Amino acid sequence: MQEHKASNLAEDAEDPFAIDIAEGLSDADIAYTLQALDAEDFIGLKTIIEELSPNETAELLAKIGGDERRALLERYGAQLDPVVFLEMDPELRRACLNEMPPERVAIIVSDLESDDALDLILPLDEDIQREIIKKLARKDRIAIEEGLNFPEDSAGRLMQREFVSIPQFWTVGKTIDYLRAASEELPDDFFDLFVVDSAHHVVGEIPLGRIVRARRSEKIDDLALEEIHTIPATMDQEDVATLFRREDLTSAPVVDEDGRLIGVITIDDVVDVITEEAHEDFLRLGGVEQGDMYRAALSTSGYRFRWLFVNLLTAILASVVISFFEATIEKIVALAVLMPIVASMGGNAGTQALTVAVRALATREISGINALRVVWKETMVGAINGAAFALITGVVAGLWFSDPMLGGVIGVAMIVNLICAGTFGTIIPILLDKAGVDPAVASSVFLTTVTDVVGFFAFLGLAAIFMA
Amino acid sequence: MQEHKASNLAEDAEDPFAIDIAEGLSDADIAYTLQALDAEDFIGLKTIIEELSPNETAELLAKIGGDERRALLERYGAQLDPVVFLEMDPELRRACLNEMPPERVAIIVSDLESDDALDLILPLDEDIQREIIKKLARKDRIAIEEGLNFPEDSAGRLMQREFVSIPQFWTVGKTIDYLRAASEELPDDFFDLFVVDSAHHVVGEIPLGRIVRARRSEKIDDLALEEIHTIPATMDQEDVATLFRREDLTSAPVVDEDGRLIGVITIDDVVDVITEEAHEDFLRLGGVEQGDMYRAALSTSGYRFRWLFVNLLTAILASVVISFFEATIEKIVALAVLMPIVASMGGNAGTQALTVAVRALATREISGINALRVVWKETMVGAINGAAFALITGVVAGLWFSDPMLGGVIGVAMIVNLICAGTFGTIIPILLDKAGVDPAVASSVFLTTVTDVVGFFAFLGLAAIFMA
Repeated sequence: MQEHKASNLAEDAEDPFAIDIAEGLSDADIAYTLQALDAEDFIGLKTIIEELSPNETAELLAKIGGDERRALLERYGAQLDPVVFLEMDPELRRACLNEMPPERVAIIVSDLESDDALDLILPLDEDIQREIIKKLARKDRIAIEEGLNFPEDSAGRLMQREFVSIPQFWTVGKTIDYLRAASEELPDDFFDLFVVDSAHHVVGEIPLGRIVRARRSEKIDDLALEEIHTIPATMDQEDVATLFRREDLTSAPVVDEDGRLIGVITIDDVVDVITEEAHEDFLRLGGVEQGDMYRAALSTSGYRFRWLFVNLLTAILASVVISFFEATIEKIVALAVLMPIVASMGGNAGTQALTVAVRALATREISGINALRVVWKETMVGAINGAAFALITGVVAGLWFSDPMLGGVIGVAMIVNLICAGTFGTIIPILLDKAGVDPAVASSVFLTTVTDVVGFFAFLGLAAIFMA
Repeated sequence: MQEHKASNLAEDAEDPFAIDIAEGLSDADIAYTLQALDAEDFIGLKTIIEELSPNETAELLAKIGGDERRALLERYGAQLDPVVFLEMDPELRRACLNEMPPERVAIIVSDLESDDALDLILPLDEDIQREIIKKLARKDRIAIEEGLNFPEDSAGRLMQREFVSIPQFWTVGKTIDYLRAASEELPDDFFDLFVVDSAHHVVGEIPLGRIVRARRSEKIDDLALEEIHTIPATMDQEDVATLFRREDLTSAPVVDEDGRLIGVITIDDVVDVITEEAHEDFLRLGGVEQGDMYRAALSTSGYRFRWLFVNLLTAILASVVISFFEATIEKIVALAVLMPIVASMGGNAGTQALTVAVRALATREISGINALRVVWKETMVGAINGAAFALITGVVAGLWFSDPMLGGVIGVAMIVNLICAGTFGTIIPILLDKAGVDPAVASSVFLTTVTDVVGFFAFLGLAAIFMA
């Protein structure tokens, strides 16, 4: 039925191609593709692309320029494996599919399983979505439209509608006979059977490993897992991921509001959710949005502008604080030289506390019961490192400007600012999370405001009192 | 054989307990546990803990204070499910296990599968590790010692030694008969069979879904997957994760240097790697290390000190740049008021570019072929937003200090700094990655140096030329 293509990495560890399999698409492959495209060598092009896995083809389309991508899709789009589009960053997928004729996209969509088809269609513009749905076969259209009825990022959208369910009164023998007879209609891959009662409620789940080792006479009811976790179709996908991780699940049944089995979520769907959420959190902390990498420069600038604008307001606020002390600075210019040190150390120490807190909130390692303990710990860390850096900066500043009082002032300001950084670095994300605002997005602006204002105020204020 | 405990979330969606299952351990549960512990109510304590899943127990131990944790482990440690310790943050696990007697830890280790046992023992201090290994049964000891021979973070450490392999000349019927007969010795859960030749080389892989639907007369050789990906035991776990993601694998055979099958890696092991790597990258970008959350304040301060110290050097460098212009600042104090704006906007814009680049390098979306295109795009984004913010800040500064020249100077400095921020925000991580340094850790220090130095130099330098 199939050929074996065992890529035995261990045996040819010295062969550079062996590394290729882990590393994926090489730059040489890409360069060669571009050459073939440029020379209009379509047979060469076909040969290369047929050798790539869908993921590698997606990587190829991501790494070449926009014009080359359009040319490649125009020439070769019809022959691409539909999975290629699933493997792309959503923003890139959007760019590719929006440019292809809806008939072509409809063919791609029909080739996919229901959850994947939905994933593919979702990032597209709504009118293009409607175009494509219109062109689908009735069965596919209904599946997609039902999927679109579930809330965004819900279990209903994540689930696959293809699953295998059997009645609870069957035996292992009858089950295997059924699977053999129904082989054609079963999903390509499945790892669990769901046991249902006459009302199609899930009463059990059986990993296939239990079926293949059981005697034919054994009852299905006796083999089912002790505990199953049914997931309502409306559950948020982040909660689904948390449940999978907490309970070490490999698959779980999804039920409608009447408790009837309507789909299954498997761990590979959850891997995508976990990766995506972590990816998003990472980007948000840096003030960018998902898909940024695949937007054109002008569009990227627009998205990033808002974040920078908010930061500008913060920076202006800090300037206003400095302007209160213009007279003092005019007398002692050394203050202008040293003041960024206090603000920047506060910002960095605060970011450390904030990063830990934002991550711990995302993984639910912080809740009401230990929130105060975490804030207190960070305040202590701020005090300890504040004292250490007060000493270092105090000595450096005192020697540099031959002014022990200046050293004292910067030292005290450093302690004050690092304590505030620790306290606010944890309190801000915790309060934002409580208020229902994503702490990964908004925390750092508030924190910078605190560490800048406190830093400049403490340093320049103390100088105004003790030195001017 | 087992009871069914179907937690039917859909049916009782209004019941607050329904949410509990997705949300996990509630703060009320924790408070109740602490009360029982305080009142020495051991029966109450036992009742609560027996109702928690291992993951929830781990969460409980993470969220209570150190003293309470010690008390709980002392009273109740012997009865805890070994899986509880697997679910913990490694730093917390270390703290828990280091305090328990080695005999107790040895019992926990013997209860686990080989890959989990290794995970558990690895974060412990080496002398405690040796203590524990000494106390293990011979078979477990050998498995652990063999695992320790593989490099850290390698496939050999990640893999499970329990798997099911069958000869290639068997039929489906013979395979099922074998699985039924050998049921006792098989791993608890398995989803694939590995087909091996007489030298124990892997020649194929069969998902169980293919076995249960096939007729007894079918040949194993005909059912095996077209393509299998064998993983050398020495492959780095990040490469393993990339391979799983790229090829959408659910499991893969691990082979020794002679190509013989020695273990299997399943997708749930890979989920842990993916989560851990994303977690680590996130924390590193903020200048903290994994486990930070579970270290005491003093130890945390020590870890974070290094990062802050490097940042202090950067800040001092920026101060040196400012000190070149002391005379100019003395004449025009407005410069001291406005200069943090230019540096801070450069820092934020650079961080945006850097965040995207660091993430794209981690997911291999940037390589030689598109690196220059990415740098060029970011430079353009810097120029566009630089122009926008030059206008805004120029007008604000000009009006604030009634000095159009000051507005012009800050505007030009803003453009220069934001262009540098875009260019260096991408070039720095790309070069660090090329040099083999983790860009998530080191990039931001270098970037801040650039944006501070360029920002202060451009603003104060232009002012010195055109205004003083």
